[in-house]
Amino acid sequence: MGASEQTHSFVNSNQTGNDTAPKAIERWLVEQLLNLAGRPPLTVELWDGTKIKPYQTDLTARLHRRRVLYRMLRNPSIGFGDSYADGSLSIKGDLLTFLEGLYRSVRDARRRGGVQRLLRHLQAKRPRPNSLSAARENIHSHYDLGNDFYRLWLDDGYMQYTCAYYPDPGATLEQAQIAKMNLVCRKLNLKPGERVAEAGSGWGGLARYMARQHGVRVRSYNISAAQIAYARHRARQDGLDGMIEYIEDDYRNLTGEYDAFVSVGMLEHVGVEHYAALGKVVDGCLKDGGRGLIHTIGRNQPRRMDDWIESRVFPGAYPPTLGEMMPIFEPNDFSIVDVENLGLHYARTLTHWLQRYELNFDTVREMFDPAFARAWRLYLAGSIAAFTTGGLQLFQVLFQRPESNALPQTRNHLYADAQ
Amino acid sequence: MGASEQTHSFVNSNQTGNDTAPKAIERWLVEQLLNLAGRPPLTVELWDGTKIKPYQTDLTARLHRRRVLYRMLRNPSIGFGDSYADGSLSIKGDLLTFLEGLYRSVRDARRRGGVQRLLRHLQAKRPRPNSLSAARENIHSHYDLGNDFYRLWLDDGYMQYTCAYYPDPGATLEQAQIAKMNLVCRKLNLKPGERVAEAGSGWGGLARYMARQHGVRVRSYNISAAQIAYARHRARQDGLDGMIEYIEDDYRNLTGEYDAFVSVGMLEHVGVEHYAALGKVVDGCLKDGGRGLIHTIGRNQPRRMDDWIESRVFPGAYPPTLGEMMPIFEPNDFSIVDVENLGLHYARTLTHWLQRYELNFDTVREMFDPAFARAWRLYLAGSIAAFTTGGLQLFQVLFQRPESNALPQTRNHLYADAQ
Repeated sequence: MGASEQTHSFVNSNQTGNDTAPKAIERWLVEQLLNLAGRPPLTVELWDGTKIKPYQTDLTARLHRRRVLYRMLRNPSIGFGDSYADGSLSIKGDLLTFLEGLYRSVRDARRRGGVQRLLRHLQAKRPRPNSLSAARENIHSHYDLGNDFYRLWLDDGYMQYTCAYYPDPGATLEQAQIAKMNLVCRKLNLKPGERVAEAGSGWGGLARYMARQHGVRVRSYNISAAQIAYARHRARQDGLDGMIEYIEDDYRNLTGEYDAFVSVGMLEHVGVEHYAALGKVVDGCLKDGGRGLIHTIGRNQPRRMDDWIESRVFPGAYPPTLGEMMPIFEPNDFSIVDVENLGLHYARTLTHWLQRYELNFDTVREMFDPAFARAWRLYLAGSIAAFTTGGLQLFQVLFQRPESNALPQTRNHLYADAQ
Repeated sequence: MGASEQTHSFVNSNQTGNDTAPKAIERWLVEQLLNLAGRPPLTVELWDGTKIKPYQTDLTARLHRRRVLYRMLRNPSIGFGDSYADGSLSIKGDLLTFLEGLYRSVRDARRRGGVQRLLRHLQAKRPRPNSLSAARENIHSHYDLGNDFYRLWLDDGYMQYTCAYYPDPGATLEQAQIAKMNLVCRKLNLKPGERVAEAGSGWGGLARYMARQHGVRVRSYNISAAQIAYARHRARQDGLDGMIEYIEDDYRNLTGEYDAFVSVGMLEHVGVEHYAALGKVVDGCLKDGGRGLIHTIGRNQPRRMDDWIESRVFPGAYPPTLGEMMPIFEPNDFSIVDVENLGLHYARTLTHWLQRYELNFDTVREMFDPAFARAWRLYLAGSIAAFTTGGLQLFQVLFQRPESNALPQTRNHLYADAQ
């Protein structure tokens, strides 16, 4: 797992660029960046072949051009990501191992404290969304990418672009995505004939699964026209269009009364400042005895999304802490029944995605361009590393009205099939 | 369940007190109290037999003396509790049903909003702890009550004064307390030879269970000398004194390094303002790979403890929301792995306690006095009603270091024994 750079040699031409030899101050600046990152176990190789080697390790970041250094001084995250994408920075050794070592080191440095102020200082200088560099054009917005792109590396059948659930580590991606949907439905204790509101449809997979397996009627809201069109088509194909209504609209316009509310992988895009409004929407649509489940990427501590991911891959994304999610629940007197952290399941899901992505790497290069293809590799590998090193979490939060008997009092039923 | 007043007639003598007939304004004031409580489905009978009957119901609060009304106008909760304890107020019909109807009504009124400001206004007038009325002397502090009192109604064997866990509804109290300890140990994934820090020992039951069933070495902190003496005695009796150290000291003085931290039923007494310090203590004592579990009464929304409970039964007690607990976890980068809400298990536990308590009611009257015995009945029944109507929750929060593999990635193992 984790692609080695050596298989993608188009960047090596950069190494013979006409940059002059690094100056003493530039070597010193690299040392400062390494200090900032808490002295991670990796080597930096400069554009003239100079090696800055705090540790004996083969994991090397190769800066093929001088400008990479200055980009990283402006913003370490964006400088690293953009340079990796355009090939002016490459990694020698396993990309994932490199990123895990780096994230661990930054995490521990942040924990020691001194570094945080500096990092914040540098982050504050990140480019504004409206002044993004040309690299931005290379990273198409998530919603423009088209179903054909996601089909290359998501699961067959349900096209779930969210964390799967692995009842055992040997499950396939397809099995694990079905197990995730099954887990969500069991937690919600769905019963035939009930009405379910879904905020964020994706490609409609969970709605189809709920309608088919649990006989519920689903109204699902989504703002992506491409996804809605695909979802409607699939529901018709499966004869489920009488059970599911896909609505191309914002979750804030959700109407009707429901037995259950479910949202898998949307909260990341809502923004903390809108959580109270989301809570009001849920409160307004849940019957007595109603229950809900929110599945979202989260954090242990409040912290902005990584700058590069936020500006290049997921504009506006923010993974909340459990505490930050409370404005959804507390003002509406919702009882939180169950919180499960599936962070390491997301690492496994992403590992499966990245494996398939690498098999289709050349196809992606042709669909888009090399910088896009490399950027998405970095995004997938970086996400794995964030989950394995604890920088990201995955919370499934189950809640209900304060006096509800719709949910069983133990979790035995969730695990009755387990050996 | 829930004792009827008719079996305890000592209060009826009050009915012939020499209070004059209620004035029109007094009847109006009773109506205002009922409005404040959201028009609960109950009748109020005044000291002369006048009935104020918003609903057709046999559930009646009988105010045997005029002073009950004025006490309740000063502070509805304390006025009600103190008057119930001293017998100047009694309930006709099932006490628990009465309290559930009342709590539900107050909850819904609070939710509608208008009432909240008024309630807060009245609560602000509650007596300061240092100016408590004579009733306070009747309610002995929790720690002075002695083991003999608790032995009357807690489980045999482990004397757990915390929420039990009912794998099935038919479990006995003894089975359910063992199942609770088993659940806690499985969640923590304790392994023989590991070291466990416990904050709040109670009578030492969980420490004994962990040492005996899981072969761990426990250091347990408690500030009650009576409980510590009992716990040490029991550990010696069971030959576990080599495995368990009971320390008569505050959790803040916890020293050493541990694989696991556990605290069952102590957080309620810590106070929100000390949660960050508690988090620091946990952070300071947990090894890499360490994990912890905090089991506490909680709430859906931040709200002071009921005035009567807080001032008469549990001085200083405060059940936090999940959000309010975050200063324990977030600053220390703990990953929250699992939150389970066992609120309805606490209702069942309390029901078992109250059943045994009623069987020993006369013994309690003799050990203490009638007012004490009635106050504890109200406290137990009121707690049941608070859990069944959603006013109280019971959170078990499992957490670990951000990069830890000590905990399994699914919960299958927790429920492997379930049918």
